[in-house]
Amino acid sequence: METLLAELRAAVGDTGVLTDTDVTASYQRDMMPLAPHGTPLAVVFPTNTEQVQAVVRACAKAKTPIVPRGAGSGLSGAANAIDGCVVLVMTKMNDIIEVDADNRLAVVEPGVINLDLRDAVEKHGLFYPPDPSSYDWCTIGGNLSTNAGGLCCVKYGVTTDSVLGIEVVLADGELLKTGRRTVKGVAGYDLTKLFIGSEGTLGVITKATLALRPLPQAPSTLVAAFPTTAQAGAAVSRIIKEGLVPSLMEIMDRSSIEAVERYLKTELGAGPGCAALLICQSDAGAEAAQRELNKIDTVCHDAGADLVYATHDLSEGRDLLTARRAVLTALEVYGSWLTDDVCVPRTRIAELIQGCEDISREVGLRIAVVGHAGDGNMHPTIVYDPTSPDEFARARKAFDDILAVGLALGGTVTGEHGVGKIKRDWLAQEIGPIGLRVHRDIKRALDPENLFNPGSMFSAT
Amino acid sequence: METLLAELRAAVGDTGVLTDTDVTASYQRDMMPLAPHGTPLAVVFPTNTEQVQAVVRACAKAKTPIVPRGAGSGLSGAANAIDGCVVLVMTKMNDIIEVDADNRLAVVEPGVINLDLRDAVEKHGLFYPPDPSSYDWCTIGGNLSTNAGGLCCVKYGVTTDSVLGIEVVLADGELLKTGRRTVKGVAGYDLTKLFIGSEGTLGVITKATLALRPLPQAPSTLVAAFPTTAQAGAAVSRIIKEGLVPSLMEIMDRSSIEAVERYLKTELGAGPGCAALLICQSDAGAEAAQRELNKIDTVCHDAGADLVYATHDLSEGRDLLTARRAVLTALEVYGSWLTDDVCVPRTRIAELIQGCEDISREVGLRIAVVGHAGDGNMHPTIVYDPTSPDEFARARKAFDDILAVGLALGGTVTGEHGVGKIKRDWLAQEIGPIGLRVHRDIKRALDPENLFNPGSMFSAT
Repeated sequence: METLLAELRAAVGDTGVLTDTDVTASYQRDMMPLAPHGTPLAVVFPTNTEQVQAVVRACAKAKTPIVPRGAGSGLSGAANAIDGCVVLVMTKMNDIIEVDADNRLAVVEPGVINLDLRDAVEKHGLFYPPDPSSYDWCTIGGNLSTNAGGLCCVKYGVTTDSVLGIEVVLADGELLKTGRRTVKGVAGYDLTKLFIGSEGTLGVITKATLALRPLPQAPSTLVAAFPTTAQAGAAVSRIIKEGLVPSLMEIMDRSSIEAVERYLKTELGAGPGCAALLICQSDAGAEAAQRELNKIDTVCHDAGADLVYATHDLSEGRDLLTARRAVLTALEVYGSWLTDDVCVPRTRIAELIQGCEDISREVGLRIAVVGHAGDGNMHPTIVYDPTSPDEFARARKAFDDILAVGLALGGTVTGEHGVGKIKRDWLAQEIGPIGLRVHRDIKRALDPENLFNPGSMFSAT
Repeated sequence: METLLAELRAAVGDTGVLTDTDVTASYQRDMMPLAPHGTPLAVVFPTNTEQVQAVVRACAKAKTPIVPRGAGSGLSGAANAIDGCVVLVMTKMNDIIEVDADNRLAVVEPGVINLDLRDAVEKHGLFYPPDPSSYDWCTIGGNLSTNAGGLCCVKYGVTTDSVLGIEVVLADGELLKTGRRTVKGVAGYDLTKLFIGSEGTLGVITKATLALRPLPQAPSTLVAAFPTTAQAGAAVSRIIKEGLVPSLMEIMDRSSIEAVERYLKTELGAGPGCAALLICQSDAGAEAAQRELNKIDTVCHDAGADLVYATHDLSEGRDLLTARRAVLTALEVYGSWLTDDVCVPRTRIAELIQGCEDISREVGLRIAVVGHAGDGNMHPTIVYDPTSPDEFARARKAFDDILAVGLALGGTVTGEHGVGKIKRDWLAQEIGPIGLRVHRDIKRALDPENLFNPGSMFSAT
């Protein structure tokens, strides 16, 4: 162990290796309270690819597992330490190496903060779409490793849709370069997309070439209030069926609305009879946005909305989105929150919300549902008292029951947060024994000694 | 061998197994004249997934390689038979199982013709974007296996961007189900995108769930004629940089224009001094399309276009596209053609065309360049006399020299046609020894006996 620590210090310098457990404690877990975590042997901060390679080689030799992580904003425990591991923190590799505006791409290191990249490319009139809720502090490397989503996905896809290529340090320390700088290319297997979303189980991403889009127009915003969630769900289905592609379409249920109105001390205009709010944006530009929102307005009214309000005022639109983004914070007034992540076919959203209401009654805990209605990705959020073992157990039960409802509706157990250390059993259930076998085969092929994030996502044996 | 044939007949019925070499000859190769091919033991036509599983198990037992194929429209020899193999023809599994308009998805068997799917979903107001040039006869299964592109990619991406999940028969006959019916999902590795583009080397796709888009507006069309290719290339760069996203942007060089004008006996309006034509479409709908094409018009004029002509007339637009699509046929007046496939960063298109002109002079053969300028994917097409060994050798040399130029410009050796049996060495050069090792590791993990399409894309050992 002393040999390994000496090698790690030789690799990244003395200041790049932390072992004081008081200090390393803040790197041993992410934002998911349900996930177990251990105590790392060391927390290591490489500053370049060669250092990552040296760390990986040293750990491989010592048979010491590596848990790579970015900022730790994850919600699945994927970045949680296991006992005796090396936590590899990529935040110091945070250079935006290149913005090639002519080819609409950027080359970045994994520790770049999502927001910093957005700001940097905006100066070139460009746009990096993936916008997870933690975009102001999460890193691109974490986004790549979880294949992060966000509010933009309904129109612009998820992280994997914005990646042209990556560099990855493999389990033997060799550097794999995948993909390319061209927007098309089919030379060989799509290794890029195999690593994206692999949650640190196959290698350590040290560089990424990202595809950028033209900066969209300033969005117009519409909010619609529905007396029942079924009506809101019907509106979503109809919007999809009509072929409308808003740049954002979020849903908030009654519990979310109440919490936010109380927290922000404002009326969302929903009124007491409102069971669900739909917030839509269009970034298609002035007349086109107006036309799109007019059609959404009609659909919402036809589906039974009490109230539909559209605005082309940017700051008013921003306020409505702030309300949406405030839900988790607002829920903290009532207790701790545990946010779930389930994605269903877009026609089944109302049934999922109904299922959550039933579970809420059954376990006796508040469950607020917010989500990306445009792609069926819902975040039912359970409020509980963490000091009560009984409430914690009921929260855990609700968390699992929600996933069961999602699967029964033809959905998936994770739309964007990942499997990590909390949904291993659910992954196995969703993909079945053959799917699990293929995962293990690939893991064994690329990481035969199970060096990277062992036990996360699935058990390798 | 007789045992295997008996088992194959038991699996798919007597009429589903062809062994007469006069008949099997028409299933032993695709459309790429450079690629070697062998003589199959049998050509087998399964009609359902269970039959595919039975065939795979029988071949695995007999250690007889399987070469899966669709219509045979490929341009890399990936579907070419090897001696003694079983060619697995998927064209009889051609059901469109489901079109779910509310969730904008379709579930299909692999033998469905691309055009048939397009027509079927259009009735629901929906759109399946991938449109390879062979869209009226190629199959979805072939499109998935090659990750096919087409003219739509500049706005709508390639095949992999339209796939939600697949079913694949693995090397031991087990059925793997990947992906899901939801538009988002990160449960486990992205196995779907690993199989897409794997050219039949990892398994046999028996079903696919495809994401559909709203049917776009009828397109408006613009054509611009440039006195030099450098000016046309500059216009493309500028269009990308300005953040414009036409739904199609094709380029034709002087040789292509000449051939088409002669073949169609029409003037493309290019005039004798024209070195390159750019054809753009916008499907953003009336005013938005007009606005977009106006901006492209300005960019083209600024870049030095002699003539820019825009039309909102559908049939006139269709005629212009017909000219673009007629290039390969038009070249047959001069000899056989051999079309290459290289993709470069969009800023380097003019340099690639210049490189092709140099190569043309050097080898003394006509090379016409057409391509998808919007994503840098060029198809330099070499015209030669197949009865002349000398011309064939020069054509082969030109084919390789073009790839070398593409790589040197930061491009890839295949943008959409694939590696198959003709670009194995080029793949190895592009991805390097570590990339090749990872390909072999994955191949071995999923197909340890090298059953599927052995020797295609790369050598497994």
